[in-house]
Amino acid sequence: MIMRTDDEQNAKSAKRKEVHDKIVASKTIEKGLIIVHTGKGKGKSTAAFGMAVRMIGHGRKVGVVQFVKGAMATGEKAIFDAFPDLCEFKPMGEGFTWDTQDRARDIAVAREGWDEVKRMIADSSYAMVVADELNIVLRYEYLPVDEVLAVLSAKPEMTHVVVTGRNAPDALIEAADLVTEMTQVKHPFRSGVKAQAGVEF
Amino acid sequence: MIMRTDDEQNAKSAKRKEVHDKIVASKTIEKGLIIVHTGKGKGKSTAAFGMAVRMIGHGRKVGVVQFVKGAMATGEKAIFDAFPDLCEFKPMGEGFTWDTQDRARDIAVAREGWDEVKRMIADSSYAMVVADELNIVLRYEYLPVDEVLAVLSAKPEMTHVVVTGRNAPDALIEAADLVTEMTQVKHPFRSGVKAQAGVEF
Repeated sequence: MIMRTDDEQNAKSAKRKEVHDKIVASKTIEKGLIIVHTGKGKGKSTAAFGMAVRMIGHGRKVGVVQFVKGAMATGEKAIFDAFPDLCEFKPMGEGFTWDTQDRARDIAVAREGWDEVKRMIADSSYAMVVADELNIVLRYEYLPVDEVLAVLSAKPEMTHVVVTGRNAPDALIEAADLVTEMTQVKHPFRSGVKAQAGVEF
Repeated sequence: MIMRTDDEQNAKSAKRKEVHDKIVASKTIEKGLIIVHTGKGKGKSTAAFGMAVRMIGHGRKVGVVQFVKGAMATGEKAIFDAFPDLCEFKPMGEGFTWDTQDRARDIAVAREGWDEVKRMIADSSYAMVVADELNIVLRYEYLPVDEVLAVLSAKPEMTHVVVTGRNAPDALIEAADLVTEMTQVKHPFRSGVKAQAGVEF
Protein backbone atom coordinates (compact mmCIF):
# COMPACT_ATOMS: atom_id res chain seq x y z
CA MET A 1 0.00 0.00 0.00
CA ILE A 2 1.37 3.42 -0.97
CA MET A 3 0.74 5.98 1.77
CA ARG A 4 -0.07 9.45 0.58
CA THR A 5 -0.85 12.64 2.44
CA ASP A 6 -4.22 14.19 1.77
CA ASP A 7 -2.50 17.01 -0.17
CA GLU A 8 -0.69 14.54 -2.44
CA GLN A 9 -3.93 12.62 -2.91
CA ASN A 10 -5.84 15.82 -3.72
CA ALA A 11 -3.20 16.88 -6.27
CA LYS A 12 -3.39 13.45 -7.92
CA SER A 13 -7.20 13.71 -8.05
CA ALA A 14 -7.02 17.19 -9.58
CA LYS A 15 -4.75 15.90 -12.35
CA ARG A 16 -7.04 12.94 -12.98
CA LYS A 17 -10.05 15.26 -13.16
CA GLU A 18 -8.26 17.48 -15.69
CA VAL A 19 -7.49 14.52 -17.98
CA HIS A 20 -11.02 13.18 -17.56
CA ASP A 21 -12.65 16.55 -18.39
CA LYS A 22 -10.49 16.88 -21.52
CA ILE A 23 -11.56 13.44 -22.75
CA VAL A 24 -15.26 14.10 -22.07
CA ALA A 25 -15.13 17.45 -23.90
CA SER A 26 -13.75 15.73 -27.01
CA LYS A 27 -16.83 13.49 -27.27
CA THR A 28 -19.58 15.28 -29.13
CA ILE A 29 -21.37 12.70 -31.29
CA GLU A 30 -24.86 11.50 -30.36
CA LYS A 31 -26.19 8.50 -32.19
CA GLY A 32 -28.16 5.35 -31.66
CA LEU A 33 -25.84 2.54 -30.66
CA ILE A 34 -25.74 -1.15 -31.42
CA ILE A 35 -25.05 -2.63 -28.00
CA VAL A 36 -24.15 -6.28 -27.33
CA HIS A 37 -24.07 -8.03 -23.94
CA THR A 38 -22.42 -11.42 -24.25
CA GLY A 39 -20.30 -13.88 -22.24
CA LYS A 40 -21.15 -16.70 -19.87
CA GLY A 41 -21.60 -14.52 -16.77
CA LYS A 42 -24.73 -13.06 -15.23
CA GLY A 43 -26.14 -9.64 -15.94
CA LYS A 44 -26.54 -9.65 -19.72
CA SER A 45 -30.35 -9.51 -19.72
CA THR A 46 -30.46 -7.70 -16.37
CA ALA A 47 -28.30 -4.83 -17.62
CA ALA A 48 -30.39 -4.64 -20.82
CA PHE A 49 -33.52 -4.52 -18.67
CA GLY A 50 -31.87 -1.81 -16.56
CA MET A 51 -31.17 0.28 -19.67
CA ALA A 52 -34.74 -0.19 -20.93
CA VAL A 53 -36.19 0.89 -17.57
CA ARG A 54 -33.80 3.83 -17.39
CA MET A 55 -34.98 4.92 -20.85
CA ILE A 56 -38.57 4.69 -19.57
CA GLY A 57 -37.44 6.85 -16.64
CA HIS A 58 -36.38 9.45 -19.22
CA GLY A 59 -39.93 9.30 -20.60
CA ARG A 60 -38.87 7.60 -23.83
CA LYS A 61 -40.41 4.53 -25.42
CA VAL A 62 -38.75 1.13 -25.46
CA GLY A 63 -39.57 -2.18 -27.08
CA VAL A 64 -38.40 -5.47 -25.61
CA VAL A 65 -38.63 -8.77 -27.47
CA GLN A 66 -37.74 -11.83 -25.44
CA PHE A 67 -36.52 -14.73 -27.56
CA VAL A 68 -36.04 -17.22 -24.72
CA LYS A 69 -38.65 -17.83 -22.07
CA GLY A 70 -37.58 -16.87 -18.60
CA ALA A 71 -34.66 -14.55 -19.31
CA MET A 72 -36.98 -11.72 -18.30
CA ALA A 73 -39.90 -12.79 -16.17
CA THR A 74 -42.43 -11.82 -13.48
CA GLY A 75 -40.38 -9.05 -11.88
CA GLU A 76 -39.64 -7.38 -15.18
CA LYS A 77 -43.18 -7.76 -16.46
CA ALA A 78 -44.65 -6.04 -13.39
CA ILE A 79 -42.41 -3.03 -14.01
CA PHE A 80 -43.12 -2.85 -17.75
CA ASP A 81 -46.85 -3.13 -17.00
CA ALA A 82 -46.57 -0.06 -14.76
CA PHE A 83 -45.59 2.05 -17.80
CA PRO A 84 -47.91 0.84 -20.57
CA ASP A 85 -47.43 3.96 -22.72
CA LEU A 86 -43.65 3.74 -22.68
CA CYS A 87 -43.02 0.06 -23.11
CA GLU A 88 -43.97 -2.75 -25.40
CA PHE A 89 -42.85 -6.11 -23.99
CA LYS A 90 -43.16 -9.16 -26.23
CA PRO A 91 -42.23 -12.46 -24.62
CA MET A 92 -41.91 -14.74 -27.68
CA GLY A 93 -40.10 -17.59 -26.04
CA GLU A 94 -43.06 -19.83 -25.22
CA GLY A 95 -42.07 -22.23 -27.95
CA PHE A 96 -38.32 -21.87 -27.55
CA THR A 97 -37.03 -23.18 -24.25
CA TRP A 98 -35.35 -26.26 -22.86
CA ASP A 99 -38.84 -27.72 -22.67
CA THR A 100 -39.65 -27.96 -26.36
CA GLN A 101 -37.68 -30.23 -28.60
CA ASP A 102 -39.08 -29.18 -31.93
CA ARG A 103 -36.55 -27.38 -34.11
CA ALA A 104 -39.00 -26.48 -36.87
CA ARG A 105 -41.33 -24.85 -34.36
CA ASP A 106 -38.42 -23.03 -32.66
CA ILE A 107 -37.40 -21.57 -36.02
CA ALA A 108 -40.96 -20.34 -36.62
CA VAL A 109 -41.07 -18.73 -33.15
CA ALA A 110 -37.65 -17.10 -33.68
CA ARG A 111 -38.89 -15.70 -37.00
CA GLU A 112 -42.00 -14.32 -35.32
CA GLY A 113 -39.87 -12.61 -32.64
CA TRP A 114 -37.54 -11.18 -35.23
CA ASP A 115 -40.52 -9.73 -37.13
CA GLU A 116 -41.46 -7.88 -33.92
CA VAL A 117 -37.91 -6.55 -33.53
CA LYS A 118 -37.89 -5.37 -37.16
CA ARG A 119 -41.23 -3.60 -36.73
CA MET A 120 -40.01 -1.80 -33.59
CA ILE A 121 -36.68 -0.80 -35.15
CA ALA A 122 -38.46 0.55 -38.23
CA ASP A 123 -40.67 2.72 -35.98
CA SER A 124 -38.51 5.63 -34.83
CA SER A 125 -40.87 6.36 -31.92
CA TYR A 126 -38.90 3.64 -30.08
CA ALA A 127 -35.79 5.13 -28.48
CA MET A 128 -34.46 1.66 -27.65
CA VAL A 129 -35.20 -1.86 -28.85
CA VAL A 130 -33.96 -4.83 -26.82
CA ALA A 131 -33.61 -8.20 -28.56
CA ASP A 132 -33.15 -10.33 -25.46
CA GLU A 133 -31.28 -13.61 -26.06
CA LEU A 134 -31.18 -13.06 -29.81
CA ASN A 135 -27.60 -14.38 -29.75
CA ILE A 136 -28.90 -17.82 -28.74
CA VAL A 137 -31.22 -17.80 -31.75
CA LEU A 138 -28.32 -16.88 -34.02
CA ARG A 139 -26.09 -19.51 -32.44
CA TYR A 140 -28.63 -22.23 -33.18
CA GLU A 141 -28.95 -20.86 -36.71
CA TYR A 142 -32.66 -20.27 -36.29
CA LEU A 143 -32.14 -16.94 -38.08
CA PRO A 144 -29.38 -15.95 -40.54
CA VAL A 145 -26.88 -13.46 -39.04
CA ASP A 146 -26.74 -11.59 -42.36
CA GLU A 147 -30.43 -10.78 -42.17
CA VAL A 148 -30.00 -9.37 -38.64
CA LEU A 149 -26.97 -7.30 -39.68
CA ALA A 150 -28.84 -5.87 -42.67
CA VAL A 151 -31.65 -4.63 -40.41
CA LEU A 152 -29.22 -3.18 -37.85
CA SER A 153 -27.23 -1.32 -40.50
CA ALA A 154 -30.42 0.25 -41.86
CA LYS A 155 -31.87 1.25 -38.45
CA PRO A 156 -32.99 4.85 -37.76
CA GLU A 157 -29.93 6.87 -36.75
CA MET A 158 -30.96 7.63 -33.17
CA THR A 159 -32.42 4.24 -32.21
CA HIS A 160 -30.41 2.18 -29.71
CA VAL A 161 -30.57 -1.58 -30.24
CA VAL A 162 -29.47 -3.94 -27.48
CA VAL A 163 -28.77 -7.61 -28.26
CA THR A 164 -28.07 -10.05 -25.43
CA GLY A 165 -27.02 -13.66 -25.05
CA ARG A 166 -23.86 -15.72 -24.80
CA ASN A 167 -21.87 -16.56 -27.91
CA ALA A 168 -22.54 -13.35 -29.86
CA PRO A 169 -21.49 -14.01 -33.47
CA ASP A 170 -18.20 -12.35 -34.51
CA ALA A 171 -19.96 -10.46 -37.31
CA LEU A 172 -22.37 -8.89 -34.79
CA ILE A 173 -19.51 -7.88 -32.48
CA GLU A 174 -17.82 -6.36 -35.51
CA ALA A 175 -20.96 -4.35 -36.37
CA ALA A 176 -21.64 -3.23 -32.77
CA ASP A 177 -20.64 0.07 -31.16
CA LEU A 178 -20.55 -1.11 -27.55
CA VAL A 179 -19.78 -4.70 -26.56
CA THR A 180 -19.51 -5.96 -23.00
CA GLU A 181 -18.60 -9.48 -22.04
CA MET A 182 -20.01 -10.66 -18.73
CA THR A 183 -17.53 -13.15 -17.25
CA GLN A 184 -18.50 -15.52 -14.48
CA VAL A 185 -16.01 -15.29 -11.65
CA LYS A 186 -18.06 -17.10 -9.03
CA HIS A 187 -21.58 -18.57 -9.11
CA PRO A 188 -23.64 -19.81 -6.14
CA PHE A 189 -25.38 -22.45 -8.29
CA ARG A 190 -22.23 -24.51 -7.74
CA SER A 191 -22.86 -24.65 -4.00
CA GLY A 192 -26.47 -25.81 -4.30
CA VAL A 193 -28.21 -22.43 -4.23
CA LYS A 194 -31.30 -22.27 -6.41
CA ALA A 195 -32.53 -19.46 -8.65
CA GLN A 196 -34.23 -16.80 -6.52
CA ALA A 197 -36.72 -13.97 -7.06
CA GLY A 198 -35.07 -10.63 -7.80
CA VAL A 199 -31.67 -12.15 -8.38
CA GLU A 200 -32.38 -14.52 -11.25
CA PHE A 201 -35.95 -13.68 -12.30
CA MET B 1 -20.63 -25.27 -39.59
CA ILE B 2 -21.92 -28.72 -38.64
CA MET B 3 -25.12 -29.56 -40.49
CA ARG B 4 -27.65 -31.57 -38.52
CA THR B 5 -31.08 -32.87 -39.41
CA ASP B 6 -33.98 -31.63 -37.31
CA ASP B 7 -34.27 -35.08 -35.68
CA GLU B 8 -30.59 -35.09 -34.69
CA GLN B 9 -30.95 -31.55 -33.37
CA ASN B 10 -34.08 -32.47 -31.40
CA ALA B 11 -32.36 -35.50 -29.84
CA LYS B 12 -29.41 -33.34 -28.85
CA SER B 13 -31.78 -30.77 -27.28
CA ALA B 14 -33.63 -33.50 -25.36
CA LYS B 15 -30.35 -34.73 -23.89
CA ARG B 16 -29.35 -31.18 -22.95
CA LYS B 17 -32.72 -30.59 -21.30
CA GLU B 18 -32.35 -33.81 -19.28
CA VAL B 19 -28.93 -32.75 -17.95
CA HIS B 20 -30.20 -29.23 -17.26
CA ASP B 21 -33.29 -30.47 -15.36
CA LYS B 22 -31.12 -32.75 -13.23
CA ILE B 23 -28.82 -29.87 -12.29
CA VAL B 24 -31.73 -27.55 -11.44
CA ALA B 25 -33.39 -30.22 -9.26
CA SER B 26 -30.22 -30.57 -7.19
CA LYS B 27 -30.31 -26.88 -6.19
CA THR B 28 -32.53 -26.40 -3.20
CA ILE B 29 -30.95 -23.76 -0.98
CA GLU B 30 -32.47 -20.28 -0.74
CA LYS B 31 -30.39 -17.60 0.93
CA GLY B 32 -29.50 -13.96 0.63
CA LEU B 33 -26.47 -13.58 -1.61
CA ILE B 34 -23.48 -11.29 -1.56
CA ILE B 35 -23.26 -10.23 -5.19
CA VAL B 36 -20.35 -8.32 -6.74
CA HIS B 37 -20.27 -6.64 -10.17
CA THR B 38 -16.75 -5.60 -11.05
CA GLY B 39 -14.47 -5.13 -14.07
CA LYS B 40 -13.79 -2.23 -16.41
CA GLY B 41 -16.75 -2.88 -18.70
CA LYS B 42 -20.21 -1.32 -18.74
CA GLY B 43 -23.25 -2.73 -17.01
CA LYS B 44 -22.09 -3.06 -13.41
CA SER B 45 -24.44 -0.42 -11.98
CA THR B 46 -27.02 -0.99 -14.71
CA ALA B 47 -27.38 -4.69 -13.88
CA ALA B 48 -27.57 -3.84 -10.15
CA PHE B 49 -30.28 -1.30 -10.96
CA GLY B 50 -32.04 -3.97 -13.05
CA MET B 51 -31.99 -6.39 -10.10
CA ALA B 52 -33.30 -3.71 -7.73
CA VAL B 53 -36.15 -2.84 -10.09
CA ARG B 54 -36.94 -6.52 -10.62
CA MET B 55 -37.15 -6.97 -6.86
CA ILE B 56 -39.57 -4.00 -6.76
CA GLY B 57 -41.54 -5.79 -9.49
CA HIS B 58 -41.84 -8.73 -7.09
CA GLY B 59 -43.33 -6.29 -4.55
CA ARG B 60 -40.29 -6.46 -2.25
CA LYS B 61 -38.41 -3.54 -0.75
CA VAL B 62 -34.95 -2.45 -1.90
CA GLY B 63 -32.46 0.10 -0.65
CA VAL B 64 -29.93 1.70 -2.98
CA VAL B 65 -27.01 3.79 -1.74
CA GLN B 66 -25.02 5.51 -4.43
CA PHE B 67 -21.44 6.27 -3.43
CA VAL B 68 -20.41 8.05 -6.61
CA LYS B 69 -22.49 10.78 -8.20
CA GLY B 70 -23.81 9.94 -11.61
CA ALA B 71 -23.50 6.15 -11.65
CA MET B 72 -27.27 6.09 -11.24
CA ALA B 73 -29.01 9.28 -12.30
CA THR B 74 -32.17 10.89 -13.67
CA GLY B 75 -33.54 7.82 -15.43
CA GLU B 76 -33.10 5.61 -12.39
CA LYS B 77 -34.44 8.21 -9.99
CA ALA B 78 -37.67 8.62 -11.95
CA ILE B 79 -38.29 4.88 -11.71
CA PHE B 80 -37.47 4.65 -7.99
CA ASP B 81 -39.73 7.65 -7.38
CA ALA B 82 -42.60 5.75 -9.01
CA PHE B 83 -42.43 3.12 -6.24
CA PRO B 84 -41.92 5.17 -3.06
CA ASP B 85 -43.08 2.35 -0.74
CA LEU B 86 -40.72 -0.22 -2.20
CA CYS B 87 -37.55 1.73 -2.64
CA GLU B 88 -35.24 3.94 -0.68
CA PHE B 89 -32.68 5.62 -2.94
CA LYS B 90 -29.85 7.51 -1.28
CA PRO B 91 -27.50 9.33 -3.66
CA MET B 92 -24.56 10.13 -1.35
CA GLY B 93 -22.05 11.03 -4.00
CA GLU B 94 -22.48 14.80 -4.01
CA GLY B 95 -19.14 15.25 -2.31
CA PHE B 96 -17.36 12.35 -3.95
CA THR B 97 -16.85 12.85 -7.66
CA TRP B 98 -14.17 13.95 -10.06
CA ASP B 99 -15.25 17.47 -9.21
CA THR B 100 -14.19 17.59 -5.58
CA GLN B 101 -10.58 17.39 -4.61
CA ASP B 102 -10.94 17.12 -0.88
CA ARG B 103 -9.93 13.72 0.47
CA ALA B 104 -11.03 14.41 4.04
CA ARG B 105 -14.49 15.40 2.87
CA ASP B 106 -14.70 12.37 0.54
CA ILE B 107 -13.95 10.09 3.49
CA ALA B 108 -16.69 11.73 5.54
CA VAL B 109 -19.19 11.29 2.68
CA ALA B 110 -18.15 7.65 2.20
CA ARG B 111 -18.68 7.04 5.91
CA GLU B 112 -22.12 8.65 5.75
CA GLY B 113 -23.07 6.41 2.79
CA TRP B 114 -21.78 3.33 4.57
CA ASP B 115 -23.89 4.19 7.63
CA GLU B 116 -26.96 4.16 5.35
CA VAL B 117 -25.97 0.77 3.92
CA LYS B 118 -25.46 -0.62 7.42
CA ARG B 119 -28.86 0.67 8.55
CA MET B 120 -30.59 -0.92 5.53
CA ILE B 121 -28.78 -4.26 5.92
CA ALA B 122 -29.69 -4.38 9.62
CA ASP B 123 -33.35 -3.88 8.72
CA SER B 124 -34.62 -7.20 7.36
CA SER B 125 -37.60 -5.53 5.68
CA TYR B 126 -35.16 -4.79 2.82
CA ALA B 127 -34.99 -7.80 0.47
CA MET B 128 -32.01 -6.28 -1.34
CA VAL B 129 -29.48 -3.56 -0.58
CA VAL B 130 -27.34 -2.13 -3.39
CA ALA B 131 -24.07 -0.40 -2.48
CA ASP B 132 -23.40 1.22 -5.84
CA GLU B 133 -19.72 1.97 -6.52
CA LEU B 134 -18.69 0.92 -3.03
CA ASN B 135 -15.65 -0.78 -4.62
CA ILE B 136 -14.30 2.63 -5.62
CA VAL B 137 -14.58 3.80 -2.03
CA LEU B 138 -12.69 0.71 -0.86
CA ARG B 139 -10.08 1.14 -3.58
CA TYR B 140 -9.35 4.69 -2.43
CA GLU B 141 -9.22 3.41 1.16
CA TYR B 142 -11.99 5.75 2.23
CA LEU B 143 -13.41 2.84 4.24
CA PRO B 144 -11.61 -0.21 5.64
CA VAL B 145 -12.46 -3.45 3.78
CA ASP B 146 -12.52 -5.36 7.07
CA GLU B 147 -15.34 -3.22 8.38
CA VAL B 148 -17.40 -3.87 5.23
CA LEU B 149 -16.73 -7.63 5.42
CA ALA B 150 -17.77 -7.74 9.08
CA VAL B 151 -21.14 -6.17 8.26
CA LEU B 152 -21.68 -8.48 5.28
CA SER B 153 -20.88 -11.61 7.27
CA ALA B 154 -23.41 -10.58 9.96
CA LYS B 155 -26.22 -9.65 7.54
CA PRO B 156 -29.72 -11.15 7.90
CA GLU B 157 -29.75 -14.55 6.19
CA MET B 158 -32.23 -13.75 3.42
CA THR B 159 -30.99 -10.25 2.51
CA HIS B 160 -29.25 -9.89 -0.84
CA VAL B 161 -26.46 -7.33 -0.94
CA VAL B 162 -25.10 -6.08 -4.26
CA VAL B 163 -21.76 -4.24 -4.42
CA THR B 164 -20.62 -2.64 -7.67
CA GLY B 165 -17.55 -0.89 -9.01
CA ARG B 166 -14.30 -1.76 -10.72
CA ASN B 167 -11.38 -3.16 -8.74
CA ALA B 168 -13.36 -5.15 -6.19
CA PRO B 169 -10.94 -6.06 -3.36
CA ASP B 170 -9.83 -9.71 -3.36
CA ALA B 171 -11.19 -10.18 0.16
CA LEU B 172 -14.66 -9.07 -0.99
CA ILE B 173 -14.55 -11.45 -3.98
CA GLU B 174 -13.56 -14.21 -1.57
CA ALA B 175 -16.54 -13.41 0.70
CA ALA B 176 -19.07 -13.08 -2.16
CA ASP B 177 -21.44 -15.77 -3.46
CA LEU B 178 -21.86 -14.43 -6.98
CA VAL B 179 -19.20 -12.41 -8.77
CA THR B 180 -19.41 -11.16 -12.34
CA GLU B 181 -16.69 -9.28 -14.15
CA MET B 182 -17.89 -6.94 -16.87
CA THR B 183 -15.18 -6.80 -19.53
CA GLN B 184 -15.05 -4.04 -22.08
CA VAL B 185 -14.78 -5.52 -25.57
CA LYS B 186 -15.64 -2.38 -27.53
CA HIS B 187 -16.63 1.11 -26.40
CA PRO B 188 -18.03 3.93 -28.58
CA PHE B 189 -16.37 6.61 -26.43
CA ARG B 190 -13.24 5.80 -28.44
CA SER B 191 -14.88 6.97 -31.65
CA GLY B 192 -16.04 10.31 -30.23
CA VAL B 193 -19.52 9.30 -29.10
CA LYS B 194 -20.68 11.07 -25.94
CA ALA B 195 -22.60 9.70 -22.95
CA GLN B 196 -26.28 9.47 -23.85
CA ALA B 197 -29.60 9.28 -21.99
CA GLY B 198 -30.76 5.73 -21.36
CA VAL B 199 -27.45 4.19 -22.35
CA GLU B 200 -25.12 5.81 -19.81
CA PHE B 201 -27.42 7.65 -17.42
